[in-house]
Amino acid sequence: MSFDPATLVYDANGLIPCIAQEEATGEVLMMAWMNAESVARTLETGRVTYWSRSRQSFWVKGESSGHLQELVVLRVDCDRDCLLALVRQTGPACHTNRRSCFYTALRDGEEVEILQPMAG
Amino acid sequence: MSFDPATLVYDANGLIPCIAQEEATGEVLMMAWMNAESVARTLETGRVTYWSRSRQSFWVKGESSGHLQELVVLRVDCDRDCLLALVRQTGPACHTNRRSCFYTALRDGEEVEILQPMAG
Repeated sequence: MSFDPATLVYDANGLIPCIAQEEATGEVLMMAWMNAESVARTLETGRVTYWSRSRQSFWVKGESSGHLQELVVLRVDCDRDCLLALVRQTGPACHTNRRSCFYTALRDGEEVEILQPMAG
Repeated sequence: MSFDPATLVYDANGLIPCIAQEEATGEVLMMAWMNAESVARTLETGRVTYWSRSRQSFWVKGESSGHLQELVVLRVDCDRDCLLALVRQTGPACHTNRRSCFYTALRDGEEVEILQPMAG
């Protein structure tokens, strides 16, 4: 069955969440948003391209930082309202310079940092 | 630092996305939504508890199907607007009886099913 980004289910702002997972390790790196054109560009270019809600513009991950996300495969969930991008991440995915954005764990009611910023 | 669900960033509907990942294998199983009370209940009970947008009610994952998600650890992202739950999933996470909701891959412009429903 041929894929058309228009067949995905977008929210009221025309956006769909996309989870980025490191293909080699399975680590969940981040979650950000795409619109239909971001989805199309990601598939065309092989570079994961989100829609920045704060800047209201396309956001080619790593374009300014060099921390690119190379797309390995894009998956769609059962309800067609969430995407999973398996990627090869160069350097940190998080703007805090950590490998993953999910660096805070909740343990016994406390917040614990489990990842340090990468050396750079 | 002590954790308070009220410090998370919720959308206009009071919801935050939560990604469920199988702790043992790293497989991303699903994404669903929580409100502040879901987050509190998940941490208190150790059973992942979403907010069902369609039913507008709490949804203890697996309560009716038996396909429970036992919480191993909950993580918060850098912007505090997305959660990652590492879980031990009993049976399929997806309502289609597949292990993961992300069973459709996009390959060369085609949709390809990569997971079969589990035997039950």
